[in-house]
Amino acid sequence: METKNDFQKEPQNNSQTEPKLSRRQLLKMAGVGGAGLLLGGAGVGSLFATGAVGAASSTATAQPAADILPFYGKYQQGIVTPQQDFFHFAAFDIIAKKRSDVRALFEKWTDAAARITQGQPVGDESNNQHLPPTDTGEAIGLTASKLTITFGVGPTLFTKDGADRFGLASKRPAPLADLPAFSADELQAEWCGGDIGVQVCANDPQVAFHAIRNLARIARGSAVIRWSQAGFQRTERAAAKPGTARNLMGFKDGTGNPDVNDDAAMNDVVWVQPSEGPAWMTNGSYMIVRRIRMRIEEWDRSTLQDQEATFGRARISGAPLGGTDEFEKLDLDKKDASGKPLIPVDSHVALAHGDGKVRILRRSYSYTNGIDAKTGQLDTGLFFVCFNRDPRKQFVPMQQRLAKNDRLNEYIVHVGSAVFACLPGASAGGFLGQELF
Amino acid sequence: METKNDFQKEPQNNSQTEPKLSRRQLLKMAGVGGAGLLLGGAGVGSLFATGAVGAASSTATAQPAADILPFYGKYQQGIVTPQQDFFHFAAFDIIAKKRSDVRALFEKWTDAAARITQGQPVGDESNNQHLPPTDTGEAIGLTASKLTITFGVGPTLFTKDGADRFGLASKRPAPLADLPAFSADELQAEWCGGDIGVQVCANDPQVAFHAIRNLARIARGSAVIRWSQAGFQRTERAAAKPGTARNLMGFKDGTGNPDVNDDAAMNDVVWVQPSEGPAWMTNGSYMIVRRIRMRIEEWDRSTLQDQEATFGRARISGAPLGGTDEFEKLDLDKKDASGKPLIPVDSHVALAHGDGKVRILRRSYSYTNGIDAKTGQLDTGLFFVCFNRDPRKQFVPMQQRLAKNDRLNEYIVHVGSAVFACLPGASAGGFLGQELF
Repeated sequence: METKNDFQKEPQNNSQTEPKLSRRQLLKMAGVGGAGLLLGGAGVGSLFATGAVGAASSTATAQPAADILPFYGKYQQGIVTPQQDFFHFAAFDIIAKKRSDVRALFEKWTDAAARITQGQPVGDESNNQHLPPTDTGEAIGLTASKLTITFGVGPTLFTKDGADRFGLASKRPAPLADLPAFSADELQAEWCGGDIGVQVCANDPQVAFHAIRNLARIARGSAVIRWSQAGFQRTERAAAKPGTARNLMGFKDGTGNPDVNDDAAMNDVVWVQPSEGPAWMTNGSYMIVRRIRMRIEEWDRSTLQDQEATFGRARISGAPLGGTDEFEKLDLDKKDASGKPLIPVDSHVALAHGDGKVRILRRSYSYTNGIDAKTGQLDTGLFFVCFNRDPRKQFVPMQQRLAKNDRLNEYIVHVGSAVFACLPGASAGGFLGQELF
Repeated sequence: METKNDFQKEPQNNSQTEPKLSRRQLLKMAGVGGAGLLLGGAGVGSLFATGAVGAASSTATAQPAADILPFYGKYQQGIVTPQQDFFHFAAFDIIAKKRSDVRALFEKWTDAAARITQGQPVGDESNNQHLPPTDTGEAIGLTASKLTITFGVGPTLFTKDGADRFGLASKRPAPLADLPAFSADELQAEWCGGDIGVQVCANDPQVAFHAIRNLARIARGSAVIRWSQAGFQRTERAAAKPGTARNLMGFKDGTGNPDVNDDAAMNDVVWVQPSEGPAWMTNGSYMIVRRIRMRIEEWDRSTLQDQEATFGRARISGAPLGGTDEFEKLDLDKKDASGKPLIPVDSHVALAHGDGKVRILRRSYSYTNGIDAKTGQLDTGLFFVCFNRDPRKQFVPMQQRLAKNDRLNEYIVHVGSAVFACLPGASAGGFLGQELF
């Protein structure tokens, strides 16, 4: 049985599902217009279809449009997008010397991202035996899997070791500053920083890997991966019913997040507003990533009471201690018979919540990297990702409270950290960072 | 919205789908009888159900029986089982000093594996606030996800540094010997060996992680993880149609595998036969794992012609060079007009095939572990897993041919290696390795 859905073959006849269009025409339409032009329900399945006869072939074209998220738009995808199952983060360092080279990289990356997020290969294949294939190929035959790619730029793009590398120093937004040292940090250089941060999310890990790998390949000569980390959560398919996913400590994670469908909240919490400047960041957002190692061996030895007091929530239901429902309002004033707060003041939820006025949008994943050779313990934990409008007013004060007093600090250690200004979305025909570069 | 599918709550009423049975009764039935007793279609969903009212609750009980593979049986699962999407391998070293402690560990592991493969927690929760939870909790609310756990023992269980550690030296099967050094090996101690090897596969990465982590927790004081590696392939869900998955070089991987549904072939290739001995290995199999790093940066610079000549197959279709169909018989005698073999004699497929008489069952996954700090290159590749009846006659001669001449060696490097004797299956009431210990 040969698979019939390979994109390098020229379609002979797409009449089973669609009007006759050459593959090149289809690619062009998709490349220019994004998913909107992809002929509805059949989606980009047609791009993979060979039109070969038989029942198997019509199955191959049935790529659900629901698996494709539009690339172009006001905002970048991957921020208020409902969380996909898999994650791959890469921090890049720029090795190019000229601003025009950085601009050219973002042009190429935008083009590639616009294609692969729609389930297409990164570029047209030449099929020239004497050239390397244009696309690395591991995503051939796979659906777009809700792939999103979110690009951000770090403080070192603007100034590095005191030097204005690309003549961009004056364009650095004030909120894009190195994070302050937090009291509980044990940061390791190999998990920190980067001139560019790329967050890839998808419902398939091979599709996510394919994106990072091809972006790295396209960057050759301009930028190199500084560090990277793959992540996961429980797959949607494995969840017996929808609901908040659990982290590797066994607790629900993300309950207190603002609603991504609430535009007002997103404008308040996530999106840089026109009044704030700089103009190139309007409709962008600041992304903070923290690689948080869990001391799970120690956690697993702690009592249920300790664990629940540490989070301030019930382990099974996820409800605030003293409550019954995961999503009930946090009442930090509730006391037990002896007058002690039901939710300990140094619990994770109490400190993260603070006065409840400052919020962030969390979008974290679990990670596992085998055994740490130095300690013999599992190198596993939470790859924390959050988006906010101004880290100085949101993430930083929240993390300062946590770093100082959080009971959870006994069981976690922050080993990686970076901050990036995520660009606003691009319009078809334009590219990400166009106003910056 | 509170989730209602948490297993710690006592079911009040399961009448929506099933006769009234207490959770404890159900657990007992499942624990003793395996999936067969799980009341058909509704499967162990009932174990998660609280019987709470409302539409949401009836969704939660609909855990498909198809997501559960029986644990007890003649053979261990995870060998001829069709490959799941995710993989987590761990090699353990035994720190216990007495054979009875090792036996006790396998008894506890068998019990835990029999439960979690059926979608249950590792043990009954006490809900005692002053004890650690029995199960680490990250799989609460998740389906069994076709979880399989496959246990094997390594040569060092029998003899280590010349010592007969547990009085088992005389029981070592001759095929369970350290692998010879292969000419292209660049093995690193941190990815090699182990007294016990555990292969976990599932259609969800969190379910797979949960298994390894809880086995490690149960082993505390008896064994520690020596090394571990998570792996993946493209998810079934993302494949536009069924077919052979591609590795991270973009080529289909596993085409030439024998058919796992062909009992005669499996007896020939995989299962240790009663005539071979030792008796404790009858219906077992030998598992070889090799952590094979891909030099993907170099691969990505090689031409399509090089890539296809390296594998001996067409990149898109997976067909042998000169052929058209992925599954057509390999014809190594086919020549081009100039008399040169169409499939190069030093191609991967030609050397792996050899005279076609010796086969192995491959069951490999891709892996990615971020950036190698030493080289700055992606630490990614293939976690090769194979099963065979006698490595001395199957894997070893095949790998010797490949190590010496395979064109692919330019693009890969074997950094990890281990061999294990995978035990036969256990019967309900028994435990894995019962005849050995």
